[in-house]
Amino acid sequence: MLSFQYLLESFEKRFQTEIQNIQNTAPLQLYGPIAYSLAVGGKRIRPVLLLHAASLFSRYPETFFPAAAAIELFHNFTLLHDDIMDHAAIRRGVPSVHVKYSENSAILSGDAMSILSFQMLSQCEPSKLPSVLTLFSTTAIEVCEGQQFDMEFEEKDQVTIVEYLEMIRLKTAVLIACSLKTGAMLAGADELNCQLLYDFGLAIGIAFQLQDDWLDVYGEERSFGKKIGGDICENKKTCLLISAMKLCDERNRSKLLEWTSKSDFDKKEKIEAVRRIFSESGAATATKALMKHYHDLGIEKLNQIAITDSEKTELRNFASALLSRVK
Amino acid sequence: MLSFQYLLESFEKRFQTEIQNIQNTAPLQLYGPIAYSLAVGGKRIRPVLLLHAASLFSRYPETFFPAAAAIELFHNFTLLHDDIMDHAAIRRGVPSVHVKYSENSAILSGDAMSILSFQMLSQCEPSKLPSVLTLFSTTAIEVCEGQQFDMEFEEKDQVTIVEYLEMIRLKTAVLIACSLKTGAMLAGADELNCQLLYDFGLAIGIAFQLQDDWLDVYGEERSFGKKIGGDICENKKTCLLISAMKLCDERNRSKLLEWTSKSDFDKKEKIEAVRRIFSESGAATATKALMKHYHDLGIEKLNQIAITDSEKTELRNFASALLSRVK
Repeated sequence: MLSFQYLLESFEKRFQTEIQNIQNTAPLQLYGPIAYSLAVGGKRIRPVLLLHAASLFSRYPETFFPAAAAIELFHNFTLLHDDIMDHAAIRRGVPSVHVKYSENSAILSGDAMSILSFQMLSQCEPSKLPSVLTLFSTTAIEVCEGQQFDMEFEEKDQVTIVEYLEMIRLKTAVLIACSLKTGAMLAGADELNCQLLYDFGLAIGIAFQLQDDWLDVYGEERSFGKKIGGDICENKKTCLLISAMKLCDERNRSKLLEWTSKSDFDKKEKIEAVRRIFSESGAATATKALMKHYHDLGIEKLNQIAITDSEKTELRNFASALLSRVK
Repeated sequence: MLSFQYLLESFEKRFQTEIQNIQNTAPLQLYGPIAYSLAVGGKRIRPVLLLHAASLFSRYPETFFPAAAAIELFHNFTLLHDDIMDHAAIRRGVPSVHVKYSENSAILSGDAMSILSFQMLSQCEPSKLPSVLTLFSTTAIEVCEGQQFDMEFEEKDQVTIVEYLEMIRLKTAVLIACSLKTGAMLAGADELNCQLLYDFGLAIGIAFQLQDDWLDVYGEERSFGKKIGGDICENKKTCLLISAMKLCDERNRSKLLEWTSKSDFDKKEKIEAVRRIFSESGAATATKALMKHYHDLGIEKLNQIAITDSEKTELRNFASALLSRVK
């Protein structure tokens, strides 16, 4: 078993070389934006999870670098196109690709990035490729479905918690689950252990997204790296808003409706007022409880995997760190 | 060997079922635009070429339907995203996806369509998948590179014929070549024959695009299905414009420069004037000669393929039909 820290460093080193190669490929205007978006960073959670899962069943997890790079490429492609669709000007503290370059650039470089991820994947061991490609492409489609639901929610008056959880399962959790399962598959784990890792990833991925929504409301701007309260300003139907609408009293409900229907408002004032309603209504507590539920569900799956308890340490720590992460 | 006509009909029948399935998949707003763009039609040249190439080396080419569908899906994805980038409002006589739905819809449905093509491909015979996926993903990247060069040419003052030919090789020809080679690979043809089919497709694909540029100037609107003179109005640096700039006399050169620098003009008048310069300068003849050159190059490759002469009939007819096609 290899530590997250070790895998992150070794992945990052090889990935930086990959980024350099991409950057120097012609046409530069196609590959430049790809290198730009990859070089900005990110937590590289998905490739590390893939390599770690592989390290649980194989002594040579680093041979699976192409698959890890494929997942990171695909994830960054989705961010790139999501930013166009969401008109998001900033990503990881720097201008998004469609702002720094152009919208056409962002569309085409994103397309190329998505295809590059499949090209990377084609380097997998031939005997493993059919099942790995099937999982990867199915997951990739699900991520698009998740983004579609997310966009549709903006137009809908009401979204239920069940619909919201299904959306984040597709948009966020399946790719985390796919990372873990792909690592295990490449390392030759049997179907049951692969599936348990997938289920662990799915539950943890949902908890991860719930924490992301939470941090948007209760996080520290400096450590989170994003503007706090963005979701509140946009009336984004997160677990917090959906729960608050359901749980709050009449007085807070009319206040909440007033704030969400105002088109002209002081951002700071709205954020503080809505945050207070989230806390008072119990929506904050309910969201934390839901996170805990998915965390525990993940741990339950982890416990069933046929590896030693000490081999589960990193994944267990990763799962608890999610609940208390600040960035 | 199976005829194009037979393969077109049998492909279309199965593909329509596929389109129906896509149309009925949730979220409808993601899959609807995909079904819309696929149902509008098109000539289905690429899947027919794939299946025909397969039929030259296998008695059961229809088992390769998923790969044929993958290529058709990928081709239609590129049209969908190209239309956003080129601000093209009409495709095959009906509103483009970004006009009929929305730009976000066109971006996301296009993304899903590109991924669906890889998902389709994952159904290929496992032993063939690594090589087929490598060729397909490399080709797909090249198509993006071609589109990038095409967009860059709009900003450039001068484009040479060599640069233009490289652009259409990437944007159009490699996917036609890939279709033929994939069919042959799946059917178990040896490497030399696969490569010869690829080279035939590459040459014919370039001739195909040159004829497309030609039809934009000299075609009949009713049979071509597109507005005639679109390239002329936009000063698109096609083989005709590049050749005319090089070949024409001083008087025509200043006329041409005048027309291409005017931002306000009568479309009909510009089209007629530029068309006359294309004819008078010899650019029209030069373009036809170039088409003939690539046609002959393709036939030379076809002649070397280790199949009987009568088995080459359909591809030979296809190549000559390209030179005289009107749509």
